[in-house]
Amino acid sequence: MAITPVILSGGGGTRLWPMSTPECPKQFLALTGEHSMFRLTLDRVNDRASFCAPIIVSGAAHADVVTSQLASAGITDASVLLEPCARNTAPAIALAALAAADPKAVLLVMPSDHLIADVAAFHAATNAALPLAQDGWLVTYGITPSAPETGFGYIRMGEALSDGVQRVDRFVEKPERVAAEAMLAEGNHSWNGGIFLFRADRYLGALAVHAPDILAKAQEAMRGASRDGHYMRPQSEAFAACPADSVDYAVMEKDDRVAVVPADMGWSDVGSWDALYEIGAKDESGNVVSGNVRLDAANGNLVKADGMRVSIHGVSDLIIIANGSEIMILPRGSSQKVRDFAGG
Amino acid sequence: MAITPVILSGGGGTRLWPMSTPECPKQFLALTGEHSMFRLTLDRVNDRASFCAPIIVSGAAHADVVTSQLASAGITDASVLLEPCARNTAPAIALAALAAADPKAVLLVMPSDHLIADVAAFHAATNAALPLAQDGWLVTYGITPSAPETGFGYIRMGEALSDGVQRVDRFVEKPERVAAEAMLAEGNHSWNGGIFLFRADRYLGALAVHAPDILAKAQEAMRGASRDGHYMRPQSEAFAACPADSVDYAVMEKDDRVAVVPADMGWSDVGSWDALYEIGAKDESGNVVSGNVRLDAANGNLVKADGMRVSIHGVSDLIIIANGSEIMILPRGSSQKVRDFAGG
Repeated sequence: MAITPVILSGGGGTRLWPMSTPECPKQFLALTGEHSMFRLTLDRVNDRASFCAPIIVSGAAHADVVTSQLASAGITDASVLLEPCARNTAPAIALAALAAADPKAVLLVMPSDHLIADVAAFHAATNAALPLAQDGWLVTYGITPSAPETGFGYIRMGEALSDGVQRVDRFVEKPERVAAEAMLAEGNHSWNGGIFLFRADRYLGALAVHAPDILAKAQEAMRGASRDGHYMRPQSEAFAACPADSVDYAVMEKDDRVAVVPADMGWSDVGSWDALYEIGAKDESGNVVSGNVRLDAANGNLVKADGMRVSIHGVSDLIIIANGSEIMILPRGSSQKVRDFAGG
Repeated sequence: MAITPVILSGGGGTRLWPMSTPECPKQFLALTGEHSMFRLTLDRVNDRASFCAPIIVSGAAHADVVTSQLASAGITDASVLLEPCARNTAPAIALAALAAADPKAVLLVMPSDHLIADVAAFHAATNAALPLAQDGWLVTYGITPSAPETGFGYIRMGEALSDGVQRVDRFVEKPERVAAEAMLAEGNHSWNGGIFLFRADRYLGALAVHAPDILAKAQEAMRGASRDGHYMRPQSEAFAACPADSVDYAVMEKDDRVAVVPADMGWSDVGSWDALYEIGAKDESGNVVSGNVRLDAANGNLVKADGMRVSIHGVSDLIIIANGSEIMILPRGSSQKVRDFAGG
């Protein structure tokens, strides 16, 4: 049975400002190579032998860029759900589950702004998790941790349920550094990467138990939805009245039949300019460069130039991002400062 | 007798790239404040009780910007000589001397891309030098040195000719550091700032002796010049055939009656971004900033933003210049690298 990809593209993050903006958030930008992360997410599940037509959940403001990127990917069968407002992931996935052609369809829910370098490992994890998902388990993908990161939630993995899949023992909120180091030392913990595999009806049933308001408002929004070909616009007032909550809080942390499939698949949430530097291809001086950039005696810099030329001499370990109307310069390691700039 | 200002505006320097470009060289840019250095040069000699209508010598390519800046300065009586090509200062001054209404007019020759903070000191030096200039001396202004700079020529000052004016003992080419330090220690040396006071006929007579080819070709170019109101275009072929030489080499270093009027007048040639940082107004963190710039935890930077916004966190002692299509970043103290970037 083929899997139905659900691609969540409602994010409008500010952590990659000034490239990422509310008008064109990071998932639609070609930040890591030739293609956007939205496009790479589509490509990852574009084998129609294994995957059905995808369901895209996106903000209404981004209908044009979604259309354009679907077209350039050659995808004509996607369903696009245009959210009238952002209500976090639990309602977004509810819309997709209600829109699925088959109530028992297995949904592969993916953020559209993450990078997965080892797609084969991703597919292997999906294949390992599929029987349990079909059997009614809510499966989350556990990212093999590479460092004691404090910016991610963690999953403590419990007993084996099948070859490659374990019961979730518990979810751990973003930890302090010491706690993160302890989990890495202990092993048997994964990062919570926000990728899920479960049946549409099973998810909706879990919502009915754990978050009935979300289910009710999502159903109301879908009953009142307007359609235009592959595009569907849920009814605005009903969706606006839906509680905003993440799928983790609303469902995964509350349900009893939750499994994790650990996957070492070169995952990155590309959550900061520092993260982008880490995954970027370095020149012989350790610079990660894109666009029209001239470097002289410069080492370890991340430089992105869009719409202008950047000329640099004699500086090291800087993040330099230029996008035509904005330039941001700060040292590597301080990319959390970006939010302050992005707000003003 | 009123003095005729001659403003040399033929420069197209690259040392303040990317702001200064061949299309709009530094003298026409408001780099040091509200007004361009060309405008500030005009304003310096705009008192019609002391100064006649100025003669501007500029490149033909810059006729429009000259016209516009004359208009904004409210100057309607300037003569503008538009050079068909650049031939350095000796020919440019020859054109102006030939264009002067009175052959015995005293010309005050000034570059248009220098800054003089103490205009009263400049005027005092001019008043001190005027009798000698009227008497046939070629007078150069000696800038009181503030450091053992190796980027300027020096003048060794000789016997006093009058109150405040001395005979030039000799001109010294741009020195090595040790020689510069020795001259500062010895005293009695000035920088050669490229400002001159002499009679038109005396300059043309000196050219006839020391550089007759320059005089002949300048005369030919002026005889064939086309006129349009206050604008005059010297004949192209004749002027192109004129040897390119500086007034220092062609005349000042060869003539016998050459004087220097030392002047401590807050002079800067604004010859580099480092120079501009030095003369700029600093904020409490030592930053010199203009344009739409946001600074956070940044110290000792020169930041100029034109046509875009620059946001900076946590960097120190950088030169950051952004002009809409180009951004240049390098450490303070290395602004000589600019030429490499400007060429490409």
